[in-house]
Amino acid sequence: MPMFPEKLRKLYADAGVDAVFVECDFLRRYLTDFYSTDGYVLLTADKCTFFADLRYFEAAEKALKDSAVEVVRGGYREALEAAKPYHTLGVPYPFVSVSALRLYEKEGHEAVDCMPAFKRAMLIKTEEELFRIQRACEIAEDGFELLLPDLKEGMTESEVAALLEYNMRKLGASGVSFDTICAFGENGSVPHYETGTRKLQFGDPVLIDFGCKFEGYCSDITRTFLFGDDKNHEEFKKLHGIVLTAHELVKERLTAGMSGRAADAIARSYLRGKGLAEYFTHSLGHGIGLQIHEYPVLSPKGEEILEDGMVFSDEPGIYIAGELGIRIEDSLYMKNGRAVSFMKKTSRHAIIL
Amino acid sequence: MPMFPEKLRKLYADAGVDAVFVECDFLRRYLTDFYSTDGYVLLTADKCTFFADLRYFEAAEKALKDSAVEVVRGGYREALEAAKPYHTLGVPYPFVSVSALRLYEKEGHEAVDCMPAFKRAMLIKTEEELFRIQRACEIAEDGFELLLPDLKEGMTESEVAALLEYNMRKLGASGVSFDTICAFGENGSVPHYETGTRKLQFGDPVLIDFGCKFEGYCSDITRTFLFGDDKNHEEFKKLHGIVLTAHELVKERLTAGMSGRAADAIARSYLRGKGLAEYFTHSLGHGIGLQIHEYPVLSPKGEEILEDGMVFSDEPGIYIAGELGIRIEDSLYMKNGRAVSFMKKTSRHAIIL
Repeated sequence: MPMFPEKLRKLYADAGVDAVFVECDFLRRYLTDFYSTDGYVLLTADKCTFFADLRYFEAAEKALKDSAVEVVRGGYREALEAAKPYHTLGVPYPFVSVSALRLYEKEGHEAVDCMPAFKRAMLIKTEEELFRIQRACEIAEDGFELLLPDLKEGMTESEVAALLEYNMRKLGASGVSFDTICAFGENGSVPHYETGTRKLQFGDPVLIDFGCKFEGYCSDITRTFLFGDDKNHEEFKKLHGIVLTAHELVKERLTAGMSGRAADAIARSYLRGKGLAEYFTHSLGHGIGLQIHEYPVLSPKGEEILEDGMVFSDEPGIYIAGELGIRIEDSLYMKNGRAVSFMKKTSRHAIIL
Repeated sequence: MPMFPEKLRKLYADAGVDAVFVECDFLRRYLTDFYSTDGYVLLTADKCTFFADLRYFEAAEKALKDSAVEVVRGGYREALEAAKPYHTLGVPYPFVSVSALRLYEKEGHEAVDCMPAFKRAMLIKTEEELFRIQRACEIAEDGFELLLPDLKEGMTESEVAALLEYNMRKLGASGVSFDTICAFGENGSVPHYETGTRKLQFGDPVLIDFGCKFEGYCSDITRTFLFGDDKNHEEFKKLHGIVLTAHELVKERLTAGMSGRAADAIARSYLRGKGLAEYFTHSLGHGIGLQIHEYPVLSPKGEEILEDGMVFSDEPGIYIAGELGIRIEDSLYMKNGRAVSFMKKTSRHAIIL
């Protein structure tokens, strides 16, 4: 068995508990680098044990044979038994149910929140993690390119979302990273619009916010365009250009050492200069990784300092209630002190089909 | 505003708390009968209040104007503020995070698990609920019928699953009720197989376990068949017939007043008579509703007494490790003391394409 990896040693030390106990999918994946829908991980000072049931045991043993993770056949009972000797148990509070907490307490453990330690550890991505996010971004872009020629008048928002999601699956995604937002016409003016049954018409503005997962890692991208030019959308075109400039300014001006607040201000102050700041009603961006919303936060309250290896979205938007909504989003990563986009194929312009 | 409904009054009384506070999707839907991905519900002795943010407020107010649910514009802060006067707060432990629990405690509440009360209330479905499950079952069957002619040699399990899921979405499902299980060849021998990249070949046994959601409610169905007859699957055909008999016997013999244990025994004792009980490695069935796994439980440990209005799966199976797996599943409901299948279209036989 190889050396106990620095990543696990640091996380354990940062959590400040006798043992870390993980039940939830994405953190289990983070600790073991093995994907499963079920299983338990116990992390101590010098050992990381993955309890896998018969569905996963063989595959996990094979995949992890050269890693520092020991795979043990077992379920909840075996995992809890192994955790017995450890008094303080680090568990990620936002992802642990009260039912589970009560069980840990019954077993004599004192539960401590270890999510802050995970959050700090997961801020900086490894090369392998960046590769997976890159693939998730490529698949999302390819799925979108495949979608465009299939768009037809009369399709519902829901049909378009389903087709895009199917494309991404066909291209190798394991699933979506969140429910696709597909909004036609003025529906785009609701930032977290719920995809519905409105039918696509010639001239409609179309906003699609989507992403997929590749080996557990997420992509996130938004494009807003016109489905045909009915010459009645001059305001849309003008505002689209302004949002695009805000989006691109972030990529140009963002440097390592800036805070999330300062990054957000790049787009926000540009929009303020255009008299549009009040229509930019959400944050500039959020961290992306095994979850679609991670750290850092790029917002007027964002305190994290941006560094190489961080991954986050750049998604300024303008929303005029009941009229129109425009958002342009890429997933970015920090390299050599600068922001680089994962998106290389899909146009960010107000393309007209 | 209409009379306070009996359903809410009974649930509140059964929970035995000062107020019930709900954050999670499907229970919020159960209380309000309105679907939203966000929001909070406070249920007291004579009032049910839904706190909806700007995404949902207008739609909720419109949809619920003739109901006993009061819709209030607001988020977490407003909901917690409204809950302030109530000391014991009923929250569903399996669906509440420790982070949320800590917040309730900080607000001075004593948290009590109200999931048992929800479980009891949700056991018996209303006509409206049965209608939604019926639609979810019809869409699943139609999606499957649409899939069969599109199956081709060389397609991966994952592609087939994606295409079936797309069909269901196109036909009106809001999404899947669980990740589709699609297993070719001996992969079917793992009951909770994770859909992978194996390619379909002539003669392969195919097991597909799938379902979708319609207005929040789930369907669940499994079909096992041969992709062409290579004459090398006589054992499969024989065992398929036995599983089908076990499946049909349950529908014939199950009556109101039986326990979940007795229902399970119908299939299990038949398979025992064939010397195959050891290969039936899971429960006969589980309740189905807003969640894919609800009550009653039909297993050797199932204690609930089956009654009119209950909905559950009938899914006997035989699994011979590394060789083959056969499962045949319908979603059933109890009516006039008998079990009735929601499935009306897809063949349960070992159809050969």
